[in-house]
Amino acid sequence: MKNQITNALSDFFFEYETPRQVLVRNRRVGVVCRLIQLGVLAYIIGWVFIYEKGYQSTDTAVSSVFTKMKGVGYTNVSGSERVWDVADYVFPPQGDSSFVVMTNYIITEGQKMGKQTLCMFLFQGQMTGVCVEGTKTCEVLAWCPVEDDHNIPDPPLLMSAENYTLFIKNSVTFPLFGVTRSNLVEGIDADYISKCLHDPKKAPLCPIFRLGDIVKLSGFSFETIARVGGAIGIVVDWTCNLDVDVKHCKPQYNFHGLYGNPAETDKARASVGYNFRYAKHYMEDRIQKRTLLKVFGIRFDIIVQSLARKFDIIPTLTAIGSGVGIFGVATVVCDLVLLYLLPKREFYKNMKFKYTDTHTQVSSFCL
Amino acid sequence: MKNQITNALSDFFFEYETPRQVLVRNRRVGVVCRLIQLGVLAYIIGWVFIYEKGYQSTDTAVSSVFTKMKGVGYTNVSGSERVWDVADYVFPPQGDSSFVVMTNYIITEGQKMGKQTLCMFLFQGQMTGVCVEGTKTCEVLAWCPVEDDHNIPDPPLLMSAENYTLFIKNSVTFPLFGVTRSNLVEGIDADYISKCLHDPKKAPLCPIFRLGDIVKLSGFSFETIARVGGAIGIVVDWTCNLDVDVKHCKPQYNFHGLYGNPAETDKARASVGYNFRYAKHYMEDRIQKRTLLKVFGIRFDIIVQSLARKFDIIPTLTAIGSGVGIFGVATVVCDLVLLYLLPKREFYKNMKFKYTDTHTQVSSFCL
Amino acid sequence: MKNQITNALSDFFFEYETPRQVLVRNRRVGVVCRLIQLGVLAYIIGWVFIYEKGYQSTDTAVSSVFTKMKGVGYTNVSGSERVWDVADYVFPPQGDSSFVVMTNYIITEGQKMGKQTLCMFLFQGQMTGVCVEGTKTCEVLAWCPVEDDHNIPDPPLLMSAENYTLFIKNSVTFPLFGVTRSNLVEGIDADYISKCLHDPKKAPLCPIFRLGDIVKLSGFSFETIARVGGAIGIVVDWTCNLDVDVKHCKPQYNFHGLYGNPAETDKARASVGYNFRYAKHYMEDRIQKRTLLKVFGIRFDIIVQSLARKFDIIPTLTAIGSGVGIFGVATVVCDLVLLYLLPKREFYKNMKFKYTDTHTQVSSFCL
Repeated sequence: MKNQITNALSDFFFEYETPRQVLVRNRRVGVVCRLIQLGVLAYIIGWVFIYEKGYQSTDTAVSSVFTKMKGVGYTNVSGSERVWDVADYVFPPQGDSSFVVMTNYIITEGQKMGKQTLCMFLFQGQMTGVCVEGTKTCEVLAWCPVEDDHNIPDPPLLMSAENYTLFIKNSVTFPLFGVTRSNLVEGIDADYISKCLHDPKKAPLCPIFRLGDIVKLSGFSFETIARVGGAIGIVVDWTCNLDVDVKHCKPQYNFHGLYGNPAETDKARASVGYNFRYAKHYMEDRIQKRTLLKVFGIRFDIIVQSLARKFDIIPTLTAIGSGVGIFGVATVVCDLVLLYLLPKREFYKNMKFKYTDTHTQVSSFCL
Repeated sequence: MKNQITNALSDFFFEYETPRQVLVRNRRVGVVCRLIQLGVLAYIIGWVFIYEKGYQSTDTAVSSVFTKMKGVGYTNVSGSERVWDVADYVFPPQGDSSFVVMTNYIITEGQKMGKQTLCMFLFQGQMTGVCVEGTKTCEVLAWCPVEDDHNIPDPPLLMSAENYTLFIKNSVTFPLFGVTRSNLVEGIDADYISKCLHDPKKAPLCPIFRLGDIVKLSGFSFETIARVGGAIGIVVDWTCNLDVDVKHCKPQYNFHGLYGNPAETDKARASVGYNFRYAKHYMEDRIQKRTLLKVFGIRFDIIVQSLARKFDIIPTLTAIGSGVGIFGVATVVCDLVLLYLLPKREFYKNMKFKYTDTHTQVSSFCL
Repeated sequence: MKNQITNALSDFFFEYETPRQVLVRNRRVGVVCRLIQLGVLAYIIGWVFIYEKGYQSTDTAVSSVFTKMKGVGYTNVSGSERVWDVADYVFPPQGDSSFVVMTNYIITEGQKMGKQTLCMFLFQGQMTGVCVEGTKTCEVLAWCPVEDDHNIPDPPLLMSAENYTLFIKNSVTFPLFGVTRSNLVEGIDADYISKCLHDPKKAPLCPIFRLGDIVKLSGFSFETIARVGGAIGIVVDWTCNLDVDVKHCKPQYNFHGLYGNPAETDKARASVGYNFRYAKHYMEDRIQKRTLLKVFGIRFDIIVQSLARKFDIIPTLTAIGSGVGIFGVATVVCDLVLLYLLPKREFYKNMKFKYTDTHTQVSSFCL
């Protein structure tokens, strides 16, 4: 018994089977098949491996973004001068990845709860039920005076926002590869940051952006977007090949309008128009009052887009393995040509196949 | 020498090897093997290609969301009427993808820094060290009067929130395919938006949602969630087949409760209960005071879920290649049956194999 | 005609082709080839299937995070005592996944619009054009008094922040597998949460974190980061094998500094330094005033990282199929050895190949 197992094992280890093949010496079939095979090989090596980097596995990053605005705005509305600093024009103040820079506003000061007769179509409060007959007006409870937002200031009150600067800090981690990168890459140190200004050509890695430049690169007119507001996406693109030194893994910055309606022809116009209402509450003479701001501004969304690739044995061998399979398909195609299309197909069939049943005894006798 | 290379090349190009095969004429084996092969073929074509669309590569989107609430609330607490507009009940005001709509509150007005003797268990401040013996109370420095949040108003003060509407703008980009879509798809123009209200059946693409509808579709009772707060996820699902016209790439909206504890049986109840404290600071008589709001509300998280698919040569050929491999496995299975299970197995072995060593000389003589 | 098709079909179903093979009895080649084949098999079963779980498909989650801080701070600045509660020190208040806990501040009270002569380098406003000759100073319109942020309070005013606690609620959904999980997993009920405090070893699933612990686990000194601010990422890692019971799908919490500059050697120092300005507006004597806070604090980013795996027929069969392909490569390698390197290569060539043209008639006669 033990002997039998040993024999079977030695048989298994000392034997090796290799398929028997017919070597077809036919110029036409040979050239066609070799070309097909070379094509498959070129596809596997050239396309899958070199061009698409099929030997790499991919990963997207988890990321974290912090922003900081700089700059001072100035308004002079009918003689009343005012300065706007970061604490006044950025919403929210704490440096989120999505924030709004106020560029225009309609201010309604000293609002308090009160009852007012209003045109129904301006309705901004709770109806008291007292309606004035014939005039389509009713008495409503509302914050009075009611905001009048029919005229958006033109030119925008805070055109100076064009010169504000935005500083972006972004950190990405590719968990699969254990790689963490910051947009303050090698060479972008405190010294460089204190002087630089982002420019797609001259300073593509500088993380300080002038608002006017961002808007221009997104294809908008600053004056339009500043007047009625708009939404702009700042894409930080991390496309990294981690097979080369990690220091080549650098961000690229792109800018484009958001929320466009593809049905409209003028894509830029579609993204324009962004506002929200914001109230500052205070007490005056023991009465609760508020200052209502209808804020028109540019909403910036920092969108981190990432794709890292690194050599991995699994996709490599999967690509090779399935490449071999494709090779098999090439052989099947050639066989079809050989066995069904060529004039000498019967001869090749006899060469290739051996039959197990009686009516082919003759042909299989010595083949 | 040059001649030799030319010969080798011409040999290589004009020759073509194809495996020799035994054509086994055995009904049982034939049927079994053909069925296995047809099964594999059906799997590859039917399952991998048609059902799972294995010829496509996939990508998830980077996205950006903007929200806007509309509606006016009204409260009448012991004769004091008040109107709540968007600037009062949405936190934060600027239209983020995650925000809270206040539906109930406990207000503590006119808080100022002071010392107060408090029950230890209500402790909300800094102990001064002065404790009243025997009563388990100590003097603490705190914002006085201290908030009393034992009784949550019932019914909720802002039940009118049920009729507020939410407008969602969402833009997605599939970077791999270079496709950008907005939830304002073809046909959802300004005109339609001004009139429509989302309904899963009648108006599934309308981006205007009534709060009461959202809560109902999530499986909650509006009154419960409005009283103690809750968290609801609004999933915008972009599952797109980009091989067909891009205009068929449309969002689907789903609603469900968030943060449920799976251990609890009543999943809906688990998600209920959301509040935070918010203070409005002001000066009165040169003293800093604040109005503290314990806000109960519905926290909405707009969650963008995306999966786009498009024809790609790599997964196609990988699927074909590995399908050929699976075919090989089918052949191996059939061979095992043929060589080890059939009564005539020795005959088939001799047909299939040729041996290279002496003791098989006889059998290999004419095979 | 019908007969012909029936014949073709029965031929197809009752026949079955299997490749003819040469069984090479050569110890060296046998052992080498068998070892190569066993290696390939070990790779496919051991590495691809068992180690890398190649039979599973993967999915990342969409997630939603809610946070809640607890704790009271106390400051005593030159005799003026003050208590800071959650509504005072968390920005924004509504429990977002990214928020700031104030740990130090520079307060500038009672700012109002005014003109002031300022050193040019402190410039924080709009120049009026009136400059004082020879002194490098100009008159500017600004919020007066201007903030003096040259001296950051040391020790930080709110060192008590070390004992604040953070409660994280996190819900993840793997859309591909239809699985939703909350970080309040089985066993983490209201009772447990009311008593527990996160500890990497003793209570790894408790979602209540002491700020001092988080900072320590990130490798920072609390006093340093509290003084000048900093950014810390709290990674909630959901790595789940959904082939086992879903209750084993549990989160892991990790902590690390964000936005570090890899060029600097001391990574911890690189992440230090976070502040923003925040203004509280109020009216006093009909004049708009504001209290400006330069807030130094710890910015927490809750980063959800997820990877779920589950058995899927497609990757399983792709792995098997491409494994068969790799097997084919192994055979090709063995054939190269057999046909080009062995001394008896001509003999093996004759065994393996049959030639179709005349000059090989002799050798193919009885082979």
